Amino acid sequence: MFRGGTTSEIAKHNSRQSCWVVIEGHAYDLTEFLDKHPGGAAIIIRYAGKDATEEFVPAHPPGTIEKELPKDKHLGPVDLSTLQTDKPAKKSTTSSDSSNGPIPIETCINLNDMELAAKRVLPERAWTYYASAAEDLQSHRHNLCDWDRVLFRPRVLRNVKRVNMQRKILDFSSNFPFFIAPAAMARLGHPDGELCLARGAARYNIPYCSSNSSSVSHEDLTQCLKEQAGGCLFFQLYVKKKKEDTIEHIRRARVLGFKALVITADTAVVGIREEDDRYRIREAFKRSEKFVPFWGAAPVGKDDDYVLRGAHSSTLNWDDLEWIKEEWGDAGPICIKGILTAEDAKIACDMGVQSIYLSNHGGRQLDSAPSSLRALLEIRKFYPEVFEKCEVLLDGGVRRSRDILKALCLGARAVGLGRPFMYALSAYGTEGVLKTIQMLSDELETSMRLLGVTSLEELHPHMVSTGDLDTSITQDIPGFKNSRAKL
Amino acid sequence: MFRGGTTSEIAKHNSRQSCWVVIEGHAYDLTEFLDKHPGGAAIIIRYAGKDATEEFVPAHPPGTIEKELPKDKHLGPVDLSTLQTDKPAKKSTTSSDSSNGPIPIETCINLNDMELAAKRVLPERAWTYYASAAEDLQSHRHNLCDWDRVLFRPRVLRNVKRVNMQRKILDFSSNFPFFIAPAAMARLGHPDGELCLARGAARYNIPYCSSNSSSVSHEDLTQCLKEQAGGCLFFQLYVKKKKEDTIEHIRRARVLGFKALVITADTAVVGIREEDDRYRIREAFKRSEKFVPFWGAAPVGKDDDYVLRGAHSSTLNWDDLEWIKEEWGDAGPICIKGILTAEDAKIACDMGVQSIYLSNHGGRQLDSAPSSLRALLEIRKFYPEVFEKCEVLLDGGVRRSRDILKALCLGARAVGLGRPFMYALSAYGTEGVLKTIQMLSDELETSMRLLGVTSLEELHPHMVSTGDLDTSITQDIPGFKNSRAKL
Amino acid sequence: MFRGGTTSEIAKHNSRQSCWVVIEGHAYDLTEFLDKHPGGAAIIIRYAGKDATEEFVPAHPPGTIEKELPKDKHLGPVDLSTLQTDKPAKKSTTSSDSSNGPIPIETCINLNDMELAAKRVLPERAWTYYASAAEDLQSHRHNLCDWDRVLFRPRVLRNVKRVNMQRKILDFSSNFPFFIAPAAMARLGHPDGELCLARGAARYNIPYCSSNSSSVSHEDLTQCLKEQAGGCLFFQLYVKKKKEDTIEHIRRARVLGFKALVITADTAVVGIREEDDRYRIREAFKRSEKFVPFWGAAPVGKDDDYVLRGAHSSTLNWDDLEWIKEEWGDAGPICIKGILTAEDAKIACDMGVQSIYLSNHGGRQLDSAPSSLRALLEIRKFYPEVFEKCEVLLDGGVRRSRDILKALCLGARAVGLGRPFMYALSAYGTEGVLKTIQMLSDELETSMRLLGVTSLEELHPHMVSTGDLDTSITQDIPGFKNSRAKL
Amino acid sequence: MFRGGTTSEIAKHNSRQSCWVVIEGHAYDLTEFLDKHPGGAAIIIRYAGKDATEEFVPAHPPGTIEKELPKDKHLGPVDLSTLQTDKPAKKSTTSSDSSNGPIPIETCINLNDMELAAKRVLPERAWTYYASAAEDLQSHRHNLCDWDRVLFRPRVLRNVKRVNMQRKILDFSSNFPFFIAPAAMARLGHPDGELCLARGAARYNIPYCSSNSSSVSHEDLTQCLKEQAGGCLFFQLYVKKKKEDTIEHIRRARVLGFKALVITADTAVVGIREEDDRYRIREAFKRSEKFVPFWGAAPVGKDDDYVLRGAHSSTLNWDDLEWIKEEWGDAGPICIKGILTAEDAKIACDMGVQSIYLSNHGGRQLDSAPSSLRALLEIRKFYPEVFEKCEVLLDGGVRRSRDILKALCLGARAVGLGRPFMYALSAYGTEGVLKTIQMLSDELETSMRLLGVTSLEELHPHMVSTGDLDTSITQDIPGFKNSRAKL
Repeated sequence: MFRGGTTSEIAKHNSRQSCWVVIEGHAYDLTEFLDKHPGGAAIIIRYAGKDATEEFVPAHPPGTIEKELPKDKHLGPVDLSTLQTDKPAKKSTTSSDSSNGPIPIETCINLNDMELAAKRVLPERAWTYYASAAEDLQSHRHNLCDWDRVLFRPRVLRNVKRVNMQRKILDFSSNFPFFIAPAAMARLGHPDGELCLARGAARYNIPYCSSNSSSVSHEDLTQCLKEQAGGCLFFQLYVKKKKEDTIEHIRRARVLGFKALVITADTAVVGIREEDDRYRIREAFKRSEKFVPFWGAAPVGKDDDYVLRGAHSSTLNWDDLEWIKEEWGDAGPICIKGILTAEDAKIACDMGVQSIYLSNHGGRQLDSAPSSLRALLEIRKFYPEVFEKCEVLLDGGVRRSRDILKALCLGARAVGLGRPFMYALSAYGTEGVLKTIQMLSDELETSMRLLGVTSLEELHPHMVSTGDLDTSITQDIPGFKNSRAKL
Repeated sequence: MFRGGTTSEIAKHNSRQSCWVVIEGHAYDLTEFLDKHPGGAAIIIRYAGKDATEEFVPAHPPGTIEKELPKDKHLGPVDLSTLQTDKPAKKSTTSSDSSNGPIPIETCINLNDMELAAKRVLPERAWTYYASAAEDLQSHRHNLCDWDRVLFRPRVLRNVKRVNMQRKILDFSSNFPFFIAPAAMARLGHPDGELCLARGAARYNIPYCSSNSSSVSHEDLTQCLKEQAGGCLFFQLYVKKKKEDTIEHIRRARVLGFKALVITADTAVVGIREEDDRYRIREAFKRSEKFVPFWGAAPVGKDDDYVLRGAHSSTLNWDDLEWIKEEWGDAGPICIKGILTAEDAKIACDMGVQSIYLSNHGGRQLDSAPSSLRALLEIRKFYPEVFEKCEVLLDGGVRRSRDILKALCLGARAVGLGRPFMYALSAYGTEGVLKTIQMLSDELETSMRLLGVTSLEELHPHMVSTGDLDTSITQDIPGFKNSRAKL
Repeated sequence: MFRGGTTSEIAKHNSRQSCWVVIEGHAYDLTEFLDKHPGGAAIIIRYAGKDATEEFVPAHPPGTIEKELPKDKHLGPVDLSTLQTDKPAKKSTTSSDSSNGPIPIETCINLNDMELAAKRVLPERAWTYYASAAEDLQSHRHNLCDWDRVLFRPRVLRNVKRVNMQRKILDFSSNFPFFIAPAAMARLGHPDGELCLARGAARYNIPYCSSNSSSVSHEDLTQCLKEQAGGCLFFQLYVKKKKEDTIEHIRRARVLGFKALVITADTAVVGIREEDDRYRIREAFKRSEKFVPFWGAAPVGKDDDYVLRGAHSSTLNWDDLEWIKEEWGDAGPICIKGILTAEDAKIACDMGVQSIYLSNHGGRQLDSAPSSLRALLEIRKFYPEVFEKCEVLLDGGVRRSRDILKALCLGARAVGLGRPFMYALSAYGTEGVLKTIQMLSDELETSMRLLGVTSLEELHPHMVSTGDLDTSITQDIPGFKNSRAKL
Repeated sequence: MFRGGTTSEIAKHNSRQSCWVVIEGHAYDLTEFLDKHPGGAAIIIRYAGKDATEEFVPAHPPGTIEKELPKDKHLGPVDLSTLQTDKPAKKSTTSSDSSNGPIPIETCINLNDMELAAKRVLPERAWTYYASAAEDLQSHRHNLCDWDRVLFRPRVLRNVKRVNMQRKILDFSSNFPFFIAPAAMARLGHPDGELCLARGAARYNIPYCSSNSSSVSHEDLTQCLKEQAGGCLFFQLYVKKKKEDTIEHIRRARVLGFKALVITADTAVVGIREEDDRYRIREAFKRSEKFVPFWGAAPVGKDDDYVLRGAHSSTLNWDDLEWIKEEWGDAGPICIKGILTAEDAKIACDMGVQSIYLSNHGGRQLDSAPSSLRALLEIRKFYPEVFEKCEVLLDGGVRRSRDILKALCLGARAVGLGRPFMYALSAYGTEGVLKTIQMLSDELETSMRLLGVTSLEELHPHMVSTGDLDTSITQDIPGFKNSRAKL
């Protein structure tokens, strides 16, 4: 224990002027680091003078402090007996199942079962972080429901004995036309965190697009994959407020051998995820603390001092692609994630990116944004050339392989799943991830046969009927031709 | 106490022929005043011989009696010990929350939270008055739901660091593109009543369109604003049965410096608000009194003696605009509130009014009237010229800034919110109003960034997709061209 | 008591060969009457050897036995002490309101309140008879819901001080554009039965279209009207299996001075009203009796011996109109009730009938039949000439005057209400009927003002928007032109 | 008891290498039979070393073992006292009716009542097998709901005294336009199994299309029909993995005199029926056994060793029709079951088959497959010639005769019902089947009269309005003309 390493002493350093925090029993002086924190100063200041372990650990790979903070700011161990903690109950209080105890993995037969299993064991904070979405969850619900508004037109009497589910995704020969979509903070759900996802991707030879904010270090993820036969890693990039941070991330991804760069384009600011906020407010209220939100409008008269929600660049624009491409070089294809309109799809194609990724960020950013399925229908209607010019990926609300098939019929190259994998690892670790991929594979194989196809190349827009959604798609876009106008 | 100031004595004067009422411990002889009451005689007669305090106070500014009733009709104080009162329970009985006690404002993170907080503390009568709407609430529900049937078409990769939310509304440079819509009887919800609204408008520099029936005097409202830096007041006008009453109101508004005149056009008669009626009937039934409704059809054979619902003119028509404009003179723009069709929008434009205000009066007038969003779509389809000729305001069911953004994309200049502010002041007074504006501002700023715009001028119909509502809009209007016919 | 007037003796005469029944304490020999019963033999045979009072009384006007059955078949009084009865509970067991006891009429403020009040007091059998509809209630539900899919396009700033609600309906100058639609067995609900309806129609000067199967004699109904100033009676005709029965009914209606003949065209057989059947089955099951349905398919190989559901002609066709018209002569207009297609509307017009009456019989006949509102939209689309050629009446699901207004905008001359009046008289007798008309009148007057009209002649299809139903209307009819095709 | 006939001894033979199973108290050595089992080896191996009675009996006709297994593999009787059994509760645990005990058949008045009655008495396993459908039940629910989205356009004033419900179905003169659709394992529900269905078909002279997997032998079924006057049998064929098995089935069907061959085309693999899987998993979990699913994806790297779900050929294609037709010869018409697209309808017609059978297999195969009603509308839109070229049958979700009428209006020749008959026989055996047909007949007769037709030949597409479904039907199919394009 260092001098002053008592709770009451630390509690004095609770301001921007002197900011100490405790992490895993050690105190650190973060005063000078505040402005260098990629996630912004606000989140640190909230824990000034307090124990930030619970917030810090699942959000950062092990070794982060050692790497980022000068040794002289390591103050030393804290007298834990003087520390107050309010450990949240292990079990989410939002779950109201009469039966308790975990659900055996043997009884899970689809992805929704995995979600129920996760809900039963996750602490409230983790559940809330994974499950929450923006405002009234309108986009989140559309994600889940829109798939059912597309029906198949299955063909019969075809030899479907052999089914080939392989798909090339961003130059990687994947066993299946789906991949693990980026999602952060897996260690909230399981101590092994993102390693579970890497193991699953390796074992089944599918891509894993790891989050820029992975709570397992990218080094560990690449190492994990190297030890196994298959799989591949894409690097999801959040462009930071500071260009040099972004450049460093890109370079590291290159060095580590990530196969593609997936640039997130829809996070100029973090969305308003109310369930998440509610959790924080409730906790703060219990401790009689004031809740300092991460974000806020410009105070009147001081509009030069924005604190934007989140750590990401809010100036990122198409021009920035140039230097990003340059940094990335020839390390693999580039993909823009978060595109939802025909206009932006066209710009991306015109700039020569190899792939666009339709996504409304799991309904977590702008509520009332369309589902990626609607975006896909819009783009097919107004800019069908996209499917020749680049690979179209998408994610959002996919819970069944029949959803994947529908997306592929309509032109998508592959489909990502995010939350389902987070739930699977939370409930069962690596085993849950493996079972999830296996279930998707089984469903996919069965559905392809019943649809009358043996290879993904046979999929075609006329194998689905989209009438129930077509009237919802916009009727005209200035400068674009409605390719279905004659129908 | 004056002679005869006992309950039993007063109770004898319970008719049109001799009508005494008690207000705040004093008795008044209103017999001769009956026909001068702007709200009609019926409502007074209902309280003839009784204590009308509860009805009177929230509906009239302090000092009303002194100003309007000759001194010789002031009978004097009443022996309160002889008075029977049935005070309604403070707490609304329609609320069935298991937990009781007020909700801390810190835990409110959106406008719906404010409504729940208000419901928890409001007495039944106030809740009923604010929340009720016409007949089966069809229009009220459409107001709330229709917004969700419009989706965004968000653009990505644009520099959105600086966001400008300013908007000129009826010549006033507002910080935000929304304003406080007229709603009466704020003192039902909070002793400070409409002052809370004025303070909020001033603090955040937005317009407050005060109700003609404000329960705080217009003098006090203008005074409140003068004491602060920002904000502005519009005057909502109910045209009365007697022209001279209306003229007096207009003149007063002019003198007091209101910046715009908003003429309500949809209250030839008050709508059938059944929850409100039910409350009154229940209360009357409890007291074994007969419920005398404010309104009624013409008794058979006596069709010259209508008692129309409410105090407003039922003859008001376009020709009347002439003398109203004349009275108002050059005091500021004129706006017609309650327009819902392309035909009426065109008449208003042809007459040269500066603004039209789409509204179905919060669903409180004609049930089955379209939401203002549908009206906006109709007008855009059949009379898009309106957006060049005048400012289009609207209100109805707006609970999120994303609703505001949608309206603005489709051509609205600004959006009013009524009930949310009444709930906010009921739950938390001025603090609630301030927080409501702040929350709207935060949502708006975030949503603009995520939509890819930095200024309201960039909003455009193609940033939303309205397919789910378009088929609901009328297909043709005689004399109008469908501007979207080629699409 | 006559010889053999004991239960055990009577019980022996329980077959088609010897059929005695007890009614109100007297026994009758109906053996020879069986084949003359206009309602068919089956229903009588069900009660052979038993007490039929409960079935008989509400279905027949007083004096029916005296008039129809020869004196020598009146066997005499029965020893009631020997009689078993299973009186149903007074209160409907389907009602599950926690509070019991009747609802005060003062607290009823709309027609739905009346229905709730009736449900609280009606015995199960009566409630079931009134409320039941065919099979899965699909048409019944459409009746209730379709009105809400039409919205108003209200006009503002019109002088609406005086409102004229008068309407000529089948040559009668009615105070309002609605009438009491035919419904049988009112005495199930109230001892005064249909007299309550006649009194209401007279008091408010509207038409009452009495049912052919009125449980109050047509003589008493006409007498009731004569004693009052206003109102008028139409005669709803069920064409019977035997032409002479029908002729007698028409002649009687003529002699009694009914003002119009409304011929029901949609009852070739009675619909499958399952709740009604369930009630009968439950009751029979309780008594360990076999339930003999009124109806049934042709036994295999015996297809000449149909027992069709109900007493009505199943051969009635357009040619029969000739002799019906002849019998009715110049006694007033003729109206065909139950038309639901443009084709049938056209045939009726071509044959020169003065009126057609759109109805799906309260959803009680063919389930999946369209609501009359949909029929109205179809006819307007494919045969708009109908509105010049004849008066279009309709009924079905109307619970609000705004529904009436919508129908009138779309071309209907007047609207009938059936169940609401049955509920009103069941709950409150004549007072309930009066209040129902008053409530409709109040709603109508208010709604007309808020719609911006002062006379029903101003109503026009463009005052409503029907987009939400238009796509449901059939797209083409052979031989008819789509009058909206260019839109 | 044979030597080694104890549970512990038998339990040793629990592998592919040595596989003994117990059936009805006798042990059999199935080691060599494994690869000959038409249902695949997997299902047998699951019971290796155990009692398979419960699985075996309802799935195989009596005498199957005697016929198929060489005598030397019959090991002899088992010491039952040593046998562990977990008999499932007789009553389904998924039923939560407060009242228990069976429902009297007299109180059932429609097909849904029969389902409720069955649910009350069926053991969980049987209920689950009959009721389950694929994945999220989307197609199953569409089957049930889509019928209600079609409305009638009923005609009035037509002589409908005599109604002719006869229909020629695959050359058989049926009393009604419906038939019993193939469904397997009727002995799960009732000891008489499929015999109940045969008796019903015979008694009412309608076709019964028996399942290839009938749990009563086809010999017994044909014998049953011969003993009665009417009815006829169609043979539903599952094409097996081995051609010779299929040929044998076809020949047997020919010899036994089946009147038509109905080839199922949509079971290249068995669908993912999760409720069924859940039942098996729960049971296995209770016994601490590992659940070995019947199916599974190709193990990585071993893609030559698929275990496909189910016993059916996954190579079956249009070319195979040649040898099937040849085997069947002139024994009667051939019908292809499971067609859902205009393309496949056309291929079938071009190949000269006499009939196509629209079906999504009761929603049990590909979830998101369209209902047969949607398929019918699609085919009518793009390939109306089909109705002249062949008989169109269909099944799926039909619970009312009005559904049948709608299908016939749109061109179907006849309609099959599957689950309703399984529920009827489960609840009431033969009596339930008879009552079901009688109820359908009664409904049909009534509905035809109310629709205004006396013969099925009068039915026509314009007697229904399909607007609510039309927009859901695909807008174009390459190579096909939209026959409704001009509408």
